[in-house]
Amino acid sequence: MSAISFSIEKKIPHSLGRAGKITTPHGVIETPAYVTVGTKATVKSLTPEQLKEIGTQVVLANTYHLYLEPGPELIRDAGGLGKFMHWEGPTMTDSGGFQVFSLGAAFGRRLGKIGKSTKTPKAELSLQEEEKIPLAKINEDGVTFKSHSDGSTHVFTPERSIEIQHNIGADIIFAFDECTAPDASHEYQKEAMERTHRWAKRSLIEHKRGKSAQALFGIVQGGRFEDLRKESAETIGKMDFDGFGIGGSFEEEDLYKAVAWVNRELPEEKPRHLLGIGEPTDLFGAVESGSDTFDCVAPTRLARNGALYTTHGRINIFNAQFVKDFSPIDEGCACYTCTHYSRAYVAHLFRANEILANTLASIHNVYFVVNVTKKIRNSILDGSFFKLKEEFLGKYKRGE
Amino acid sequence: MSAISFSIEKKIPHSLGRAGKITTPHGVIETPAYVTVGTKATVKSLTPEQLKEIGTQVVLANTYHLYLEPGPELIRDAGGLGKFMHWEGPTMTDSGGFQVFSLGAAFGRRLGKIGKSTKTPKAELSLQEEEKIPLAKINEDGVTFKSHSDGSTHVFTPERSIEIQHNIGADIIFAFDECTAPDASHEYQKEAMERTHRWAKRSLIEHKRGKSAQALFGIVQGGRFEDLRKESAETIGKMDFDGFGIGGSFEEEDLYKAVAWVNRELPEEKPRHLLGIGEPTDLFGAVESGSDTFDCVAPTRLARNGALYTTHGRINIFNAQFVKDFSPIDEGCACYTCTHYSRAYVAHLFRANEILANTLASIHNVYFVVNVTKKIRNSILDGSFFKLKEEFLGKYKRGE
Repeated sequence: MSAISFSIEKKIPHSLGRAGKITTPHGVIETPAYVTVGTKATVKSLTPEQLKEIGTQVVLANTYHLYLEPGPELIRDAGGLGKFMHWEGPTMTDSGGFQVFSLGAAFGRRLGKIGKSTKTPKAELSLQEEEKIPLAKINEDGVTFKSHSDGSTHVFTPERSIEIQHNIGADIIFAFDECTAPDASHEYQKEAMERTHRWAKRSLIEHKRGKSAQALFGIVQGGRFEDLRKESAETIGKMDFDGFGIGGSFEEEDLYKAVAWVNRELPEEKPRHLLGIGEPTDLFGAVESGSDTFDCVAPTRLARNGALYTTHGRINIFNAQFVKDFSPIDEGCACYTCTHYSRAYVAHLFRANEILANTLASIHNVYFVVNVTKKIRNSILDGSFFKLKEEFLGKYKRGE
Repeated sequence: MSAISFSIEKKIPHSLGRAGKITTPHGVIETPAYVTVGTKATVKSLTPEQLKEIGTQVVLANTYHLYLEPGPELIRDAGGLGKFMHWEGPTMTDSGGFQVFSLGAAFGRRLGKIGKSTKTPKAELSLQEEEKIPLAKINEDGVTFKSHSDGSTHVFTPERSIEIQHNIGADIIFAFDECTAPDASHEYQKEAMERTHRWAKRSLIEHKRGKSAQALFGIVQGGRFEDLRKESAETIGKMDFDGFGIGGSFEEEDLYKAVAWVNRELPEEKPRHLLGIGEPTDLFGAVESGSDTFDCVAPTRLARNGALYTTHGRINIFNAQFVKDFSPIDEGCACYTCTHYSRAYVAHLFRANEILANTLASIHNVYFVVNVTKKIRNSILDGSFFKLKEEFLGKYKRGE
């Protein structure tokens, strides 16, 4: 008996996309839904009341960060993630896999969600070369890594990741997976994928042993290779998970082709979460290719840097033109920031290095993404998805 | 015709203290009232809605800071301070005098509100010596100073301060004054005070010339000398101000004796604002010595450093004992932070350097001071002021 249930309300014709509902012990998530990231049990600069007013339905915290501080046992003793951070709605934690590799290890470089393809093929690292990188050591059992904050050594195994996530206590948790570099070879991607499949099985076993009332999602890997992505989706799709995550890196230009490879294989009746995606221009592709939920730090991280979404694309609020601009960040936007403050005021707060700048900018950016996603949902329900997509992308100029 | 009106509701027997009401164009201030400081047109880390929920009645912004950024003309064009920052209640601006001397000039040292008296008398600077300090040059016309942020040179005169405050547009503004160092000689204090009196007259003339609908408060100076304080209160008290500010530095141990010197001279029927005072232990003395309102950055500044008020004194939330403490910051406190979060969570946010730490801590500290002040007001109305004072100060251990 799963801790969650999922129902499809309506599909986008001739595509994998759908609108639905995920029912969790802490409420219903109407999908498609943008999952707001609250890395360290806080969505940076926002109170849960502000999140609720924005329309955020579900918060995802990071297992890696919470493991390092304040520790999963403390969160368990506080009554679990939601109670600790005073968020009454549904919650998720990732498995820690992505951060172990991107922050703790990174293969000597920063591991991003989307790889930019280059004209000249990058050197492909051999297995031996990759294993030489000292910060994260992978073996069949799990990953030994050094903390990005104090350099201390830790080990994550599938069992340990699940144990930590049980203690944190989110409604939806993820199996432990290996995240590969975007330019890893087919040979290495296959090896890592097969290990991820064995780790998925071990995650499931540990989850059942713990008798947790949480839902466990398995993660599909396979890098940028169609054969591997299909194989991974088929293998993970057959396991007894409550839903699925689509992990790893993609080439930017065929991201949603690759997501569709996966979602065509996954069982239709279970929810699918696309990990690490959520900029305005990504939303339509993510949904159309069959993703029900997706999380991304970009809306809040960009906000804190003064990069704000508008109907016509992203603006940098530090630009001189906004200093005396008394119009709202995005004309017609119904968020708290746009209905109460001018660009001039937000620009002043950023220039004066005021803390409230982060709050007002984050409210706007999260609202923007939540609101576009809500419009997408409504467009699926009333059959106007492609019209909305054309309208939105026609106006929105993608930022760098 | 004054832009504000003041009525006394009840007095504390055998003292200068009273409860009253200041009616402004943006609402009533029930006194005694703690005025929350919003230096740069924002109370650091708090939205106006959070301030309202806390019970803040009035916000004071700093003329010096707003003059430097974003500039008074911009705030005027935005519709004035309240509209610019989306604070619908009453507002104040100081004259910029204190900051010109403490940030722009500082007489070669930091000018604080309360001087700690020392056993060995400090060297008294002669007028010549003080005038040698290059950052602020005082003459009869006004003060030439360098910006603390970029070193650029500016001139404040009484007329300029009033013009800037007219543009900023707060409900209550202050005459331009000279703030002296706490250990300045009687000779220098007298000279500075007399100049402040001439500047007060010029401020009044400029204010009337501008036909502003704002209320103008005159500032009493005179340092730590009884004869000067009385002379200043008498001189300023006779001028046609809407209310009065008590400025400058005091010796810590006889602060309220000195405030009482002033308030015994000032006309009883006009409101009195004590500039730069507002820590919990200061509230009773400020009120008893006849102050109706007072402002202080300490509650918010301390909050951002993790120093939190409790009924038993200040705690440092970084202390190890709070890491696993699931009780609220102050047991029985009805603020948003205490009713929704544990010390453990707030400690986690501070240790993780999370922005929300500032917000939650500031909400608590401002609420604490606002709430004690409200209790003081009620105790004046029901005749239990001295009982409350004894109870509160009996429990509260003063922090360092």
